[in-house]
Order: sequence, then C-alpha cells, then structure tokens
Amino acid sequence: MGRRIARRRIIRATIDGARIPREEKIAVEEPLEIRFNGSSFTTSMRTPGDDFDMVAGFLLAEGIISRTEHLVSMRYCAGTDEEGNQTFNVIDVQVGFGATAPDLSAARHVVTSSACGICGTNSIDEVSKKSSYALDPASGHLSVQTLLALPDTLRDAQSLFSATGGVHAAGLFTTTGELLVLREDVGRHNAVDKVIGAALREHRLPLHDSVLQVSGRASFELVQKAAMAGIPVLSAVSAPSSLAVELAEETGLTLAGFSRSSTVNLYTHPDRVVSGTKVSTLAPRKHPKSALAHAIVEE
Amino acid sequence: MGRRIARRRIIRATIDGARIPREEKIAVEEPLEIRFNGSSFTTSMRTPGDDFDMVAGFLLAEGIISRTEHLVSMRYCAGTDEEGNQTFNVIDVQVGFGATAPDLSAARHVVTSSACGICGTNSIDEVSKKSSYALDPASGHLSVQTLLALPDTLRDAQSLFSATGGVHAAGLFTTTGELLVLREDVGRHNAVDKVIGAALREHRLPLHDSVLQVSGRASFELVQKAAMAGIPVLSAVSAPSSLAVELAEETGLTLAGFSRSSTVNLYTHPDRVVSGTKVSTLAPRKHPKSALAHAIVEE
Repeated sequence: MGRRIARRRIIRATIDGARIPREEKIAVEEPLEIRFNGSSFTTSMRTPGDDFDMVAGFLLAEGIISRTEHLVSMRYCAGTDEEGNQTFNVIDVQVGFGATAPDLSAARHVVTSSACGICGTNSIDEVSKKSSYALDPASGHLSVQTLLALPDTLRDAQSLFSATGGVHAAGLFTTTGELLVLREDVGRHNAVDKVIGAALREHRLPLHDSVLQVSGRASFELVQKAAMAGIPVLSAVSAPSSLAVELAEETGLTLAGFSRSSTVNLYTHPDRVVSGTKVSTLAPRKHPKSALAHAIVEE
Repeated sequence: MGRRIARRRIIRATIDGARIPREEKIAVEEPLEIRFNGSSFTTSMRTPGDDFDMVAGFLLAEGIISRTEHLVSMRYCAGTDEEGNQTFNVIDVQVGFGATAPDLSAARHVVTSSACGICGTNSIDEVSKKSSYALDPASGHLSVQTLLALPDTLRDAQSLFSATGGVHAAGLFTTTGELLVLREDVGRHNAVDKVIGAALREHRLPLHDSVLQVSGRASFELVQKAAMAGIPVLSAVSAPSSLAVELAEETGLTLAGFSRSSTVNLYTHPDRVVSGTKVSTLAPRKHPKSALAHAIVEE
C-alpha cells in the first residue's frame, strides 16, 4: 500500500485570536521515477501505493503500450539510496514486442512540433494517432439516474479523502453503476492512471462498457487517458476545459460535467446517457450530432 | 488577452428525465510551447493570456532565471502554422548572462538521479540548491484576520471563474491584504507562474513582504514556486500535501491551508501569522520551531 497518510502537529488559528495546537493527517506526496532499462524516463509526484498500476496506466495514456502483454516486467529499483534505504520510489520497466519504446530524449507531456503554430488540433491529432481503441457509439449506454449517482458512490468509498481532505479520486464503474476500481491520489491524473492501469493489468481493456467518474474537473489530459483505454463515458464533478470538450467530440467520448445530484451537463455525444421516463411531458429531445459538433465559438 | 472563454451548446440532463439544451461558457485550454533559440524546451496546457508572465514565472520556478535582467527577450514564434494562422501558442526565449540555460535533453518536472533511492528529500534539496532568495523570518508578518479574508477577496475578483466555474486562481497580496496581481488558469500551477512572472517582469523580486493565496490545494510544486520567488507565506483554501509541508518547513515558508472564513491551519512557521487580541484569554501560545519541525510521522 505504501505510506499514504502523514501526521503533523499544526496550529489552527481562529479569527478571534485563538491558536489551537492539533494533529492533522496529511496526504503523502512523493516522487515516482519511471526508468526504462535503467534510463530515466520521467518523474512525477504521486501518493505512494498502487505504483505498478500507475505506471501501467501512464504508459497506456502515452501510447507506449496498449495491451497487457506489452508490459514484460515492472520492478522497484533493486538498490538503495545513500543511506541504505529502499525508497520504493523508482520503478524499472521493460516493454516487449508491440510496444512503442519511449524516446528518452523527450519526456512527459512534451508535445513538440517543428511548425510554428502548435495548437489544440495538433494535440488532438496526436492522441487520435496513438489510440488503439476506437469508441463504439453503441457501447457505454447508461441511464441519467445511474450517472448522477456516481459522485456520491465515489465520495462514500474515499477513505483517504475522509482522513485528509486533500486528494482527488477516480472510479471506474459499470454502466449499471457498480464500482469496479477506486483510486485516490494528490494528483488527479495519477488517480486516473492507477484506475486504468489496474484494469489493464487485469486484461480488461478496452473498457468499452464502463464509465470513469472523477472528483474534480476534466482537462484534456483526463479525456486523453479515458479515450486511450477505450472508456466511452467520462464524468466530472466540476467543469471541463475547451480542449477536453474538443478531444471528447473528436474521439467519440461522452463527456459529462458539473454532475451535481439532480442535474448533469452533457458536453459531447449525449445519446449514451439515456433519460428515464419519469416525466413523460419532458421526453428526451433529439439532438443530432451535427448540432453539437463544431459548436465551440471562441471569444 | 488571448481567447479565454469558449461557448458551446450542451444538453443539461436532469434526474427526472428532462433534457434541456443550453449554451455554456467553458474555460479555454490550449498548449503553450516554450523554445530556447528555436529548440523546444517544454509544452504545457494553459488558458491563453498573460503568456509572457507565465513563461517568466515558469523559468524562475525551474531555477533558469532569478532576476528580471536574465530575460533578454520573449517573443511569439514569428511564423504561422500549415493553414497560415499565427496561433500565439509558441514563445521563443533568450536568456542572458547570469541565467542557467536549460538542458534541452531534460524536460519539465523531470528530476533525475543516478542513485536508486529518489525521495522527497532529494526533491527538497534540489529546490534549496536552485533558490536565489532566502526567506527572512522577520518578513511577511500579517494578522490572522487579514489572512482569513484573502480567499473571499480572491473569489470576488475572479472574472473567469464567475463565467465558467472551471478555473483555478492565484493572487499575490500585500501583508495588509491588498491584492497586487490576480491570475486565473485551468492549471493551478500556471496561475501561480503568471502571478509570479508578472511580479518578476515588474522588477519586484524577491517578494519578501507578500502573501500568495491559491484557490485549491497546496502541492510541492506550488511551495517550490513561492519559495523561488522569495514569497514568505503561501495560503491554500484546501489541503497541503506532505511534501509541500516538508519543503515549506525546510525553506522557512509559512504554509497555511484549509483557510475557511473563520479558521485556518498553520502547517509551518506559524509565527508570521499574528493572532489578534480580541480574545485575551486565548493569547497566542509559543510554539518553538523545534516542536513543529520533523513532526511528520508516516504510517
């Protein structure tokens, strides 16, 4: 599991001048370095625990692997640091036939282009080029009531958040609302990598009939991670960014945001979310894809 | 200013089966590539606007520059993309004497170590090694009432959040609570880079008598950015991570978290936050540094 919670004596100061000493639980953040055959590839800050899942999910999102079999081995660095301790913060990876070995001169999140005008479209093309799993419009259908219940289910299952109030969560659900995997981390993208990596390591990809619920907002990066795993529906408690919406539109992913108990915004491909028939006078209206596509107007 | 808000037609689905078409405003996310003399250094997703500030702040946080004079020039890429458009998403930088030119084989956030056991301590040492500005225990003192008022001031001034509900904010304040610079961005670290970069470009560094208030949580990276600019107090609305606390302890920075109207948690160096005398029976207690230092116990 790793060290996930630290305790610290702090001062709680109040507006009327009181200073109350207390002990607080804090979510642990530590660097994790990924190496390929001993050469450093990238380092990110994460909450320790489920590190192999995180590495697997990260490599999938980056297009380095797309199947469980591409991962030959992952092991913690065999040595120790200067003080003789094994920190469990370095993982050495070997990938096999079919994987796209990383370019060790590049690094995480680096999108380079020789042209002058890099833009969102380049980034979207890059993801589309790398993805092994097309999203099927016929998969991933669920009811709006199921979708709206996911944030509460996620929050109720968050042990680390309950303790620290300081972590993001990602949960993979079936289309009937059953929680398959939950992960928490100080980094939202790490929580998603851990969830997807866990599924990948269990040979569950592509995740065609599943929904990914995240605790915060939906950035481009989160849509990328969902699309690379074949997940057709991504739902966020808060707002998406413009590029998240554009990538979702382009890859055929249903992007939901501001999921708040009784209402949810459907930004792209809304037909996967089936509205119930409780109120017959407000029957679902038809919204052809052409009405939503290319509806971004910048100001 | 750049394009900061996009509009999109969406469907709002409700729990009782209604599907309401509406137009939503969405925070824009676009890649920004930083080049040195034409060679790509890093690309990050950000909300367009204040790009030169963001680049300046980022280079400061990475230890590449520490003074305004180190920046010789920043300009948008002079060419256009394949379709003849200038995207304003590529900035070419020249740094001068005194700057530490970046290693273009490494990239953003990459901390490498030949030793097996990378850990939080290595990351902290790295920041301490790069920082040009020591934090003075005698600077940055402010009242708890002033500190507690900052989140509301920040929120009231957030135009982009009001429109989209989807961005983070960072605000630089004087120790009497006057707002100096506010920036909003889909990325929390970008908002901080923009605030600090704006101050750097106005020759205001080191920012010894100022407070940085952020809208979300406090990660290691945010403490790093504050410390590199000489800011003695960082306050977050939500939780800090363990490594944020350790770095703040080590660099002498006062780290506040869960700043919520009438109470705030002081994680490190609490003496800069002076409690008022409204309640004389609850006079400030002395908490020597030794009581707080090394109080992290991992479990």
